[in-house]
Amino acid sequence: MHFRMTLEYDGTDFCGWQIQPDERTVQGTLETALERLLGRSVRVTAAGRTDTGVHATGQVACFRTERDFDPAILRRALNALTPPDLSITRVDFVPEEFDPRRSATSRRYVYRLWNRRVSCPLWRRFSCHVPYPLAEQSMSRAAAELIGEHDFSSFRAAGCDAAHPVRRVLRSEFSRDGDRIDYHIEATAFLRHMVRNIVGTLIEIGSGRRPAEMHHLLTARNRNLAGATAPARGLCLVEVKYPRDA
Amino acid sequence: MHFRMTLEYDGTDFCGWQIQPDERTVQGTLETALERLLGRSVRVTAAGRTDTGVHATGQVACFRTERDFDPAILRRALNALTPPDLSITRVDFVPEEFDPRRSATSRRYVYRLWNRRVSCPLWRRFSCHVPYPLAEQSMSRAAAELIGEHDFSSFRAAGCDAAHPVRRVLRSEFSRDGDRIDYHIEATAFLRHMVRNIVGTLIEIGSGRRPAEMHHLLTARNRNLAGATAPARGLCLVEVKYPRDA
Repeated sequence: MHFRMTLEYDGTDFCGWQIQPDERTVQGTLETALERLLGRSVRVTAAGRTDTGVHATGQVACFRTERDFDPAILRRALNALTPPDLSITRVDFVPEEFDPRRSATSRRYVYRLWNRRVSCPLWRRFSCHVPYPLAEQSMSRAAAELIGEHDFSSFRAAGCDAAHPVRRVLRSEFSRDGDRIDYHIEATAFLRHMVRNIVGTLIEIGSGRRPAEMHHLLTARNRNLAGATAPARGLCLVEVKYPRDA
Repeated sequence: MHFRMTLEYDGTDFCGWQIQPDERTVQGTLETALERLLGRSVRVTAAGRTDTGVHATGQVACFRTERDFDPAILRRALNALTPPDLSITRVDFVPEEFDPRRSATSRRYVYRLWNRRVSCPLWRRFSCHVPYPLAEQSMSRAAAELIGEHDFSSFRAAGCDAAHPVRRVLRSEFSRDGDRIDYHIEATAFLRHMVRNIVGTLIEIGSGRRPAEMHHLLTARNRNLAGATAPARGLCLVEVKYPRDA
């Protein structure tokens, strides 16, 4: 049987998604739980391999079993075998050919900024503290320029293994709730560190250190021209969309 | 000079407000920071002595200095000397006779419930997980019965050192945002564990284990008749009101 899990995790104490020897990773934690449950080693594949410190409320991952299982029973058993910073919110049957990464039509991330002088103890694990004022109109204008199909080489980290740097951005905008500013970005797919490099650049625009302009960065295709990489703790993978869900 | 601080803290890793030998407390952490800053021991008094694990976004506490200080400089210096789970969001001059506890006209708390089958990794430090459905109308009706002046002996913990058990409740209601249910309560003052005992009782009403009725509990004045004490981690002191702020 082929199962799809929907996952939430606090990324603070995980060394990212991907399994690594002697490191606590999300994939490793799930594979250990499944091995205890099924009595054999099981491979888990994800829609996106989140980096160290990145959170998720809508990560999607798949595994196969030889035996038949009720998805609700699997969900309960897996939650009993996983730590409190990882929850399996759903388990569903999926067709044999379903691939959490390739079948996805888009991914949605939120990047949270905490924008006031003093940092916030309650949001410190889930946001990036920006203590200076931000010009939100400039940031919003620059963010909107990213919508559409572009070459994102200027926002691509070294070591990115994607075959080509063109991505289609479907949504790129800010919302504010008190001291919290959320940046929402949805795209068909993302390059390595793409969201954090975009946010780092938008923060520099908001602080006035850089013109409110994205077009020349996109056309330059040069990582050295864009801003610094924003910290992982502000980033959360909130949704992965698939054709059947639409 | 007499100063008032407004404080935020993640109560998870504090043994409450009140200073205790060999324990990490909010008062102890602040007094250590002030001693480093001022070179002498300083006593800090709070509007409310929160219990172990209880959070705050609007706690108020006072201290005195011999020398004159700019409040903004004190705020920055104190934030540099305190850990990331404690922030001083404001420092203000207050008159000599100001007393953070006695001068307060009311306190406002929020108690957060996370109401879905599976617990939430991102909110686990700041909410109480209730995995079964809750009858929100019954809970709201029962909560509204608490508004006004009542004897709260049925919701008063053993060891409460208040002189009398009568309190005036100004607000007592629920709001919902997705899976999160917030209970808002404002009163002139609170007895020990009063909010957590009320929430424990309201959860039992919501789950159908108890009739949606508060009146007989108030008139019975018997702690044994009310519900269990809800866990500390869902509780947050959000505001302390003073006449001058109004």
